[in-house]
Amino acid sequence: MTGAGRLGEFELIARVFAPLSGEGAYGLVDDAASLAPPPGQDLVLTKDAIAAGIHFFADDPWDAVARKALRVNLSDLAAKGATPLGYLLALGLPQDWTVDQADALGRGLAADQAEFGLTLYGGDTIRSPERLILSVTAIGTVPAGRMIRRGGACPGDVIVVTGTIGDAALGLRLRLDPSLAGRLGLSDADRNFLLDRYLIPAPRVAAAPVVLAHASGAMDVSDGLVGDLGKMAAASGVHIQIEMDRVPLSRAARAALAGAAPAVTSDVPAAGEGGDRPVDLWTAVLTGGDDYEIAAAVPEGQLDMFLADCSAAGIPATAIGRATAGQGVRVSDRNGDTVDLGTGSYSHF
Amino acid sequence: MTGAGRLGEFELIARVFAPLSGEGAYGLVDDAASLAPPPGQDLVLTKDAIAAGIHFFADDPWDAVARKALRVNLSDLAAKGATPLGYLLALGLPQDWTVDQADALGRGLAADQAEFGLTLYGGDTIRSPERLILSVTAIGTVPAGRMIRRGGACPGDVIVVTGTIGDAALGLRLRLDPSLAGRLGLSDADRNFLLDRYLIPAPRVAAAPVVLAHASGAMDVSDGLVGDLGKMAAASGVHIQIEMDRVPLSRAARAALAGAAPAVTSDVPAAGEGGDRPVDLWTAVLTGGDDYEIAAAVPEGQLDMFLADCSAAGIPATAIGRATAGQGVRVSDRNGDTVDLGTGSYSHF
Repeated sequence: MTGAGRLGEFELIARVFAPLSGEGAYGLVDDAASLAPPPGQDLVLTKDAIAAGIHFFADDPWDAVARKALRVNLSDLAAKGATPLGYLLALGLPQDWTVDQADALGRGLAADQAEFGLTLYGGDTIRSPERLILSVTAIGTVPAGRMIRRGGACPGDVIVVTGTIGDAALGLRLRLDPSLAGRLGLSDADRNFLLDRYLIPAPRVAAAPVVLAHASGAMDVSDGLVGDLGKMAAASGVHIQIEMDRVPLSRAARAALAGAAPAVTSDVPAAGEGGDRPVDLWTAVLTGGDDYEIAAAVPEGQLDMFLADCSAAGIPATAIGRATAGQGVRVSDRNGDTVDLGTGSYSHF
Repeated sequence: MTGAGRLGEFELIARVFAPLSGEGAYGLVDDAASLAPPPGQDLVLTKDAIAAGIHFFADDPWDAVARKALRVNLSDLAAKGATPLGYLLALGLPQDWTVDQADALGRGLAADQAEFGLTLYGGDTIRSPERLILSVTAIGTVPAGRMIRRGGACPGDVIVVTGTIGDAALGLRLRLDPSLAGRLGLSDADRNFLLDRYLIPAPRVAAAPVVLAHASGAMDVSDGLVGDLGKMAAASGVHIQIEMDRVPLSRAARAALAGAAPAVTSDVPAAGEGGDRPVDLWTAVLTGGDDYEIAAAVPEGQLDMFLADCSAAGIPATAIGRATAGQGVRVSDRNGDTVDLGTGSYSHF
């Protein structure tokens, strides 16, 4: 079928969404789904929406957009120690949508449902003339009373992050400024890696059992590492201090930071304006967001097990700092001096 | 505070939404909520989104819009026999929103939470520059395995509807055509009643236990009575026949239909174009949608109890037809002749 065709709402549901539905969704012909909660489990509920031109580019392929919508929610579930169960999707379709785009959206959802083990419980499709909007409610399970909260960090806990930080923020800069990759001397492979980290996040679903077993508090890093740790500090009533040099970076991010370095005389970031100087790229790395990694507060006595279980699950994890009595978040450089990062967190809002 | 002020996302959550949250939502400072499912109950999940200029008018007050967003979902829960538990809300805020509007939205949600007994589990706030969008996921409970489905109607069942049909569709016409009320000779009271039925639906939450106890199938009437009964017929594998003269009408709707009647010589609707002729208003009544009443298929032997229990709960309920072997939906006039209503269902899509 060509992209010029157009379906009615019920044809669209039958063609694209009904095949994605599972037990309790009744093929999406009902007004609602029923969910028989697994015995001894609590449900974990989260809801993140994304819109074209704000959280993704209007010309991103719809399979990637669908996966991003699902994955930003799966990231929240993973950080709570929850196993994904299913989701509901409200879809706002722009004026000029095509059947090919709708099919791509269905393919993206199907691929991620298979990868992460969840099914579609239901949803709604409305017109959103100016821009594509996807609003996902994701549902997961944890053993009763065991959801890992953002506010659970205790003084003495070690702050650990999964994966690498800053890739997506750098990818966004590369996307917004097509000549930046050349100016930084990035290889195509590094450039594409960073672009892809922005386009399709990789939620740490496999880390959920590790978080559940060993973390006292956790959240996903979505609005920028420093700002998000600030939220954890506030919710937990602790101070969090991290060392900038211990923040895990990908090879591509390191190459981007190194490519920018010759422009200035010092590699210690300092406040300032202008171009691709390390200060700006470092600020992007630490505050830019869209990482969809997990930041966990891990009691000292659990740290080795946390790291070993992550390693066994194939998930890189790095201790970057510590929670102590107090409040707020502080980033220090290799000399122990405080790094000023300005606002600290990017708001999509 | 004046409408000129503007809040950041976290200020908005703290000011407007956190006070609406309940147990398991942790004051909305976490990434997710936890829900301990009531023992012996299934959860019922539904998701309806509404957008300015499509499902409501851009100049509707935000407390009314908030209530509409919640109520269209509560209507779905009620039709499934479910008791409301809580909801999640994704809010797309237009460029020019004001703090006063956000406060009004919070007041509308608070009023309906109190009226219908549910709390806010979480959500997300994003920018939606061109139009206000609200995407609600509502969660209710039914005894395990007992959700009443759209596809449960059986041959021999009596088709019953709650309340009155067509008020909101007429209210929408009055809203779109300010001179219509005068042309129809409607009193201010009747005009305002119909306008209000469009602005803020009244979901039949109190009917849920009656549906659960006595209906074999049910759905809410949201896209137009005839089209929705067509969906019930298809999902149930039955034919549904209703008598137009038995469709319950409000005094205001009757006045509107009577006001239009003198323009034509026959009061039996027939296909045709033009103005406020009864055929058009009758079509609006039967196919216009936004009723948010419940259509239930009730076994003959349960009918008296269904009607008595509705009456005891203060809910008008009227038998309007019957399910038989076959397929499709048919509307007959007082002579038993088939009424042709054209498309049969309004699609918001």
